[in-house]
Amino acid sequence: MAKKEKTVQAPVGEKAVAPVRKERKHIHETAESMAARQRDISVSEFFAKNRHLLGFDSPRKALLTAIKEAVDNSLDACEEAGILPAIIVEVKNLGRDRYIISVQDNGPGIMKKQIPNIFGKLLYGSKFHRLKMSRGQQGIGISAAGMYGMLTTGKPVEIISRTGKGKPAHHFRLQIDTKKNKPEIVSDTEIEWDADHGTKVAIELEGKHMQGRQSVDEYLRQTAIANPHVLITYLDPNGATIIYERSTQEPPAHTQEIKPHPLGVELGVMQAMLKETRARNLAGFLQNEFSRVSKRVAEDICAAAELKPGASVSRMGHVELEKLMEGITKTKIMNPPTNCVAPIGEEQLVRGLGSVVPADFYASTTRPPAVYRGNPFIIEAALAYGGQGQEADGPARVLRIANRVPLLYQQGACCSYQAVVQTNWRNYGITQPRGGVPQGPVTIVVHMASVWVPFTSESKEAIAAYPEIEDEIIKALQECGRKLKIFLSSRKRDMDAQRKQDYISTYLPHIGIGLRELLGLSEKEEHKVVETLTGLLERHRE
Amino acid sequence: MAKKEKTVQAPVGEKAVAPVRKERKHIHETAESMAARQRDISVSEFFAKNRHLLGFDSPRKALLTAIKEAVDNSLDACEEAGILPAIIVEVKNLGRDRYIISVQDNGPGIMKKQIPNIFGKLLYGSKFHRLKMSRGQQGIGISAAGMYGMLTTGKPVEIISRTGKGKPAHHFRLQIDTKKNKPEIVSDTEIEWDADHGTKVAIELEGKHMQGRQSVDEYLRQTAIANPHVLITYLDPNGATIIYERSTQEPPAHTQEIKPHPLGVELGVMQAMLKETRARNLAGFLQNEFSRVSKRVAEDICAAAELKPGASVSRMGHVELEKLMEGITKTKIMNPPTNCVAPIGEEQLVRGLGSVVPADFYASTTRPPAVYRGNPFIIEAALAYGGQGQEADGPARVLRIANRVPLLYQQGACCSYQAVVQTNWRNYGITQPRGGVPQGPVTIVVHMASVWVPFTSESKEAIAAYPEIEDEIIKALQECGRKLKIFLSSRKRDMDAQRKQDYISTYLPHIGIGLRELLGLSEKEEHKVVETLTGLLERHRE
Repeated sequence: MAKKEKTVQAPVGEKAVAPVRKERKHIHETAESMAARQRDISVSEFFAKNRHLLGFDSPRKALLTAIKEAVDNSLDACEEAGILPAIIVEVKNLGRDRYIISVQDNGPGIMKKQIPNIFGKLLYGSKFHRLKMSRGQQGIGISAAGMYGMLTTGKPVEIISRTGKGKPAHHFRLQIDTKKNKPEIVSDTEIEWDADHGTKVAIELEGKHMQGRQSVDEYLRQTAIANPHVLITYLDPNGATIIYERSTQEPPAHTQEIKPHPLGVELGVMQAMLKETRARNLAGFLQNEFSRVSKRVAEDICAAAELKPGASVSRMGHVELEKLMEGITKTKIMNPPTNCVAPIGEEQLVRGLGSVVPADFYASTTRPPAVYRGNPFIIEAALAYGGQGQEADGPARVLRIANRVPLLYQQGACCSYQAVVQTNWRNYGITQPRGGVPQGPVTIVVHMASVWVPFTSESKEAIAAYPEIEDEIIKALQECGRKLKIFLSSRKRDMDAQRKQDYISTYLPHIGIGLRELLGLSEKEEHKVVETLTGLLERHRE
Repeated sequence: MAKKEKTVQAPVGEKAVAPVRKERKHIHETAESMAARQRDISVSEFFAKNRHLLGFDSPRKALLTAIKEAVDNSLDACEEAGILPAIIVEVKNLGRDRYIISVQDNGPGIMKKQIPNIFGKLLYGSKFHRLKMSRGQQGIGISAAGMYGMLTTGKPVEIISRTGKGKPAHHFRLQIDTKKNKPEIVSDTEIEWDADHGTKVAIELEGKHMQGRQSVDEYLRQTAIANPHVLITYLDPNGATIIYERSTQEPPAHTQEIKPHPLGVELGVMQAMLKETRARNLAGFLQNEFSRVSKRVAEDICAAAELKPGASVSRMGHVELEKLMEGITKTKIMNPPTNCVAPIGEEQLVRGLGSVVPADFYASTTRPPAVYRGNPFIIEAALAYGGQGQEADGPARVLRIANRVPLLYQQGACCSYQAVVQTNWRNYGITQPRGGVPQGPVTIVVHMASVWVPFTSESKEAIAAYPEIEDEIIKALQECGRKLKIFLSSRKRDMDAQRKQDYISTYLPHIGIGLRELLGLSEKEEHKVVETLTGLLERHRE
């Protein structure tokens, strides 16, 4: 054995410290030599090396991101199955920056054969290919969290899942083969489990637990604001149990999957759709594959495109395709259906906000649905003003939420934060430094609900600044601002009136005494004069 | 045919406008129904839907990004083949926001069978798996540019490549099958081509051409600063030809591929390496697979880890792995070799900067190599002060470069910009508002060269803020700052001296006249007195 090794050992000395067997001189690289090294990169290798793109750049953020991905999946699964979610989040400190995070839900569970793929493979899932609002969308999150755990601790991810009473509870221990982006099953057993149905995932990872605005605690608090129908039990690393009770028993409105809207489809996508459709002629294709295209609209589009409704789909060349795209932009088409998106609702939003930020005044707004790049979305905003709990001076606090998930990082890069800055709050009676957020005892909430939230990175921390989205957010904030202004003005009026009232009750009796002495009035006459004057002034005050 | 269609047509009316055949009620989704929809997502689909992650979020940025990716590849290929790069960049305006961009190089060309993969498949390449400085690293860029072109115009990418004199020139037209992340060859022919060797890629895309700080023109100008050995011919969309001549005939130093450094390898990666190594025992493994591990260092690591150097690699369990990781952190290991990284060089950097920003004073610094997460890197900084061309008042201009590629977007998110803000420029005689960049006639250049630049997104626009990197940048800026301070002080001293000199020559003659009149001196005596006084004062001045 020792002999075998010698062949790979380099001699001692400066030259030796970097043993470079088979090292290539790169001076005369050729097309042939390069070709020998060109090969596939697996998506797992890519994200393992670039894990900061997924939110695993620091131990603190990694701990939060792993929990977030698991909670997102749990809530999505419960809601799709029509189950009111009750989740248990636990963070155990193992010392030396090692933690085990686990999230258990009461959802429908996962079929045994899907467990390895869902937790052990990047880019796998059910939400990417459909147009429907959900927290997860990419099929990366939870498997990336497991991969991060494996990279930093070498430990496999543990999953327990049961799909119903009387069915077996499966316990998996999984790793990702990053070179192949495939799950590796370490163990697979049936176990006793006290839950009737649901899924529990546990990941050992390198992390850091801290309090503050980007903590697990804060994330769960904001999750409760955005999801008043969820019961969260949090077992924190210090041994405390924190419970966020439901403030409503009503689940969010069910959302429907929709087809793409013609205005949101790009030329290249249209080309691919034409290849795949089962429809034979153009009008049929348009009606079949898109939302908001009736027979009439399909004919309008064909007319505007100068194409025949009966034109054969398989014979559409590049020229026809360009005409079709042009025809679509020229035709008036209804906005996409919005039953694919469910807002939190004005009342629920205030209820959630109120349970976390006690204040003197609340306002909220749910905007009508709008569309960016063919994707329907709804913006909601709320604000809480005044109260003991809020700082009277500092900058307002901005809570950002996307599809009911709180966003804690990259505030400056987020379209909703930028919209807060761009709104002119001085119009509504709040001070605001130039180019900054308003100042004072205010908390502002912005929620975007959409079938596809355009995040600026895979880690889903900030919303990209599409003009349509920014516009809607500003409008929602303005609506809240106007409500606040009315409150502030009426409060000012009340205060002015109170002050006048105070003058009257303070000075009139003295005037009465003065008059009695000057004019020699009786006490009764004095009373009458004071009463008359008070009445006069009160009427005037109103 | 009309009959067939009827079955898929929905009746007219509100309910009809969104035809939803096969629509599922999501109220009672189960584990089984969900499993039916869970499936793979191809990496092309993922990035097509998320193309803003790759820098294709707006037509203007898309035009620049496509050119950038092609230029990066061309320069990398030329340098690896030891060819002094001469590239031709062309932007043709087709009207209606359509452009054809093309980039041609004099590189080694690409083997015929690799052309489809390199241009028609995401995550394919030769640079991802090695540790060596290059512009490209991910194997995504150029195929993503082609995919963007296809999505927005439906047109295939065109590639011409020849690997040498006498060899055929291959002309390909390619599309990406996004569902499978595979190239689709539209046509493949041999053609006449006047170049001996090299590659030309042309992409038709939706874009926008504008002047300014984020324009193609600016990008090419900065590319010339960072690559003084490159000859760029730019045919702009207005019919002008702009040539950036070489300011040196010397190519950058050749860089070597290195093995990973033990301190940069995470537990999970170490685990995978142990599985794959051909070495049988621990000491052999350490010497074989890492840089800077001699026989002696390997033994030191084993001793610190309390493991036997002869321990069998295949029997290393989790406990041994943890010990090994601990042993590595306890052992003193030389920094990684730095011949994998080539700086631009202090002189070349000033030469490049000088050719674009005429100024009164230049300073530059190349820092010694440093390491973050096991990756060697070198920071360079330069500054240009004063001169007619620079604004006397506004904020300083910051040019950011990574592996010789200028970065034009996401300045605020970039570690090198943040380092400029954090440096205390007032120490060096420049005004600087609190929390801002310095003010005045200054241009600052920061270059990071590394085997792996940690970008904040796939679009490679900003460098992530690793403390080690930020530290090095600040040190480099401070060095430039000190040089500037010396210049500014000596200029101030010169100016003070000049002022004193001016006093002397202005007032002494008058004093001479006064003395002559008061003391009745002769003209000769007066001259002598003035001369003596001048001499005295001059000496004093020094």
